[in-house]
Amino acid sequence: MVPEQDVSDVNDESLAEASAAAMYAGDHLVHHLGIEVVTVSSGEAVTTMIIKPEMVNGHAICHGGVVFSLADAALAYASNSHGGTVVASGVSIEFLAPAHVGDKITATATETHLAGRNGHYDMRVTRSDGTVIALLKGRCRRIADPDPGQ
Amino acid sequence: MVPEQDVSDVNDESLAEASAAAMYAGDHLVHHLGIEVVTVSSGEAVTTMIIKPEMVNGHAICHGGVVFSLADAALAYASNSHGGTVVASGVSIEFLAPAHVGDKITATATETHLAGRNGHYDMRVTRSDGTVIALLKGRCRRIADPDPGQ
Amino acid sequence: MVPEQDVSDVNDESLAEASAAAMYAGDHLVHHLGIEVVTVSSGEAVTTMIIKPEMVNGHAICHGGVVFSLADAALAYASNSHGGTVVASGVSIEFLAPAHVGDKITATATETHLAGRNGHYDMRVTRSDGTVIALLKGRCRRIADPDPGQ
Amino acid sequence: MVPEQDVSDVNDESLAEASAAAMYAGDHLVHHLGIEVVTVSSGEAVTTMIIKPEMVNGHAICHGGVVFSLADAALAYASNSHGGTVVASGVSIEFLAPAHVGDKITATATETHLAGRNGHYDMRVTRSDGTVIALLKGRCRRIADPDPGQ
Repeated sequence: MVPEQDVSDVNDESLAEASAAAMYAGDHLVHHLGIEVVTVSSGEAVTTMIIKPEMVNGHAICHGGVVFSLADAALAYASNSHGGTVVASGVSIEFLAPAHVGDKITATATETHLAGRNGHYDMRVTRSDGTVIALLKGRCRRIADPDPGQ
Repeated sequence: MVPEQDVSDVNDESLAEASAAAMYAGDHLVHHLGIEVVTVSSGEAVTTMIIKPEMVNGHAICHGGVVFSLADAALAYASNSHGGTVVASGVSIEFLAPAHVGDKITATATETHLAGRNGHYDMRVTRSDGTVIALLKGRCRRIADPDPGQ
Repeated sequence: MVPEQDVSDVNDESLAEASAAAMYAGDHLVHHLGIEVVTVSSGEAVTTMIIKPEMVNGHAICHGGVVFSLADAALAYASNSHGGTVVASGVSIEFLAPAHVGDKITATATETHLAGRNGHYDMRVTRSDGTVIALLKGRCRRIADPDPGQ
Repeated sequence: MVPEQDVSDVNDESLAEASAAAMYAGDHLVHHLGIEVVTVSSGEAVTTMIIKPEMVNGHAICHGGVVFSLADAALAYASNSHGGTVVASGVSIEFLAPAHVGDKITATATETHLAGRNGHYDMRVTRSDGTVIALLKGRCRRIADPDPGQ
């Protein structure tokens, strides 16, 4: 999705890291759930967490809302990696396999299309044994630009 | 969606309430987030919660994962209201307006189609001023029957 | 979705009918497939068609693209009923039951949310025996206003 | 998605081609719309077509139902490439850019997850200038096995 670049790749990565740091400081739910932001680069992000006892339902299976939140966090960091303020306007999730207490789960968000203010992203959530537990897609919209001149 | 019924309505409601009580006891995330299950009837459920400071992101807006979790809880109680064990296999969410710390938000789940083991549901999440903040659709599958004879 | 109205209801219905007539004249695919626009009112539309032999696949089942097209037509007439130019930006479909050659199928589109330029719609496609064969939701965006002053 | 294979790759490709040939013979809508099945391999398929005058709406833009049908055909050939009978149970489409009369559009379907009877696929539709005009996701279910022993 990102056009071919030379030296500017360095700036892209600096921008992605700066955007992530600014978001992370105030991202209370991410801290509250114990979500770790593993990597953020231009149009991509990886998040991870461990399922705690308070995150399961009566069947001892991790709640869909927790899996969604982990992937939504990856989406937020990937979509904001270009700077400005970007919010999700729609997300769909397919639940493929369960996660249980103690499982470490990881979400990867990848940009599939970016045009003007609108971006599209795929997310994939896996357990540490490699099993895919959820596939998501997200649609985002930039509601504030990185700087007035852009 | 529910076929016309006479006396059996009473049993349907008893079944819905019993299913809800059994689920609620072990539903740790619902307790953890402070989600209240307001009503459960055959194919329908209403849940509500108040947005706490730990549920917002860096823009002081309630995280999408929290709104999703509230609606997902309504989906779980609505889809399990007929007995047996029913799980969500796919959910999509459209974010229409933000919620902030202190807002009371309410999710309503309604069955739109039920055939065999598969059910479809609409969810709507509103703020207490009536603003719709999210629309969702959920697809569920019954993985265990209420009793062997059914 | 439509706010309470008195006399203006008459104008709303006139506007819906005028918008529909203007669209229908140039709507070549609708004519080509034999789709009939049954009713159009403010935020709602009903379309119908009969499945022809050229619309089935190797299993003698009506192609998903035909069912989608019928519902998409209902969406177009419902979302354009307020005037201006409105296009669909995203649609999802759940296939619930098959349709066969000779079946008459009917799609109903209903507005579920309208705010600014963005509208959300539910569509339901049924066979003439009442069986629901597909559930859809659509997201639309107004790209041109009805008149400069609006 | 396909596990590592050696000699069996040959058989996989033969199976994909045989499945495609059997489907294509009776696939009337595909013939009717002028859809060409360019390639079919294990879990993947490419389809292409040229937009005809009867496929546009009143704005001279190709109908969403036509774009959907092209991608749905790619989904059908990709998901049936392993043999047996596979049907789509749900598809979502995001419309990103228009297509016009005379445009050649191409759809690529790729398997993203396959487990038991359920498969997930991504589809991408492009114009010949490389512009992505639609992104889709499809969910399929195998309703008949390739042979009794499988």
